Amino acid sequence: MVNQVAELDRVFHALADPGRRLMIDRLSRGPASVSELGKPLSMSLAAVVQHVQVLEASGLVRSQKIGRTWTCSINSATLRSAESWISERRNLWERRLDHLGDYLADPAGQG
Amino acid sequence: MVNQVAELDRVFHALADPGRRLMIDRLSRGPASVSELGKPLSMSLAAVVQHVQVLEASGLVRSQKIGRTWTCSINSATLRSAESWISERRNLWERRLDHLGDYLADPAGQG
Repeated sequence: MVNQVAELDRVFHALADPGRRLMIDRLSRGPASVSELGKPLSMSLAAVVQHVQVLEASGLVRSQKIGRTWTCSINSATLRSAESWISERRNLWERRLDHLGDYLADPAGQG
Repeated sequence: MVNQVAELDRVFHALADPGRRLMIDRLSRGPASVSELGKPLSMSLAAVVQHVQVLEASGLVRSQKIGRTWTCSINSATLRSAESWISERRNLWERRLDHLGDYLADPAGQG
């Protein structure tokens, strides 16, 4: 439970940066090297590497050395756990609104 | 587009804090006052108010003064936009993996 809380802290923190979201966006279309990930971003390679490390620490991205190049890819299980956290709360709230709507339409529950 | 990027920055930043996630968790079960939101958190009312302000600025939560009490509730459209951002990337990646699996099972595409 504590681990899951800390994981969600790291995942949402990782997603809060537009450059890192651009990296996830790129990786959703297939694996890429660190330098490819940096191409659309106007920052130094050192800054790109730091962002990749934040993504790795969050569990959103995995890196693997192939030949002389580090290749990054998405870990979809982590994306799914963040998505589920949000969707469970949204569903609870929306179901509550639906019930309230039903009640207002037919307070005696005879419809 | 720029607005959407800034909104996602704020939403994911808001969700990166365990206390703020606990507030969203509570609000998913129905509206609550600021002091109710603070109950399970061991922090000052001033700190609770600051967290609520971060949630409001992100668009995840709306507050309304009813009598003498500020009542907070979820804005599910904002939850949905964060959820969609994640699910679109996850789906792209998973569809790609499925196609790769199909290809490896039948490289000539004659199955």
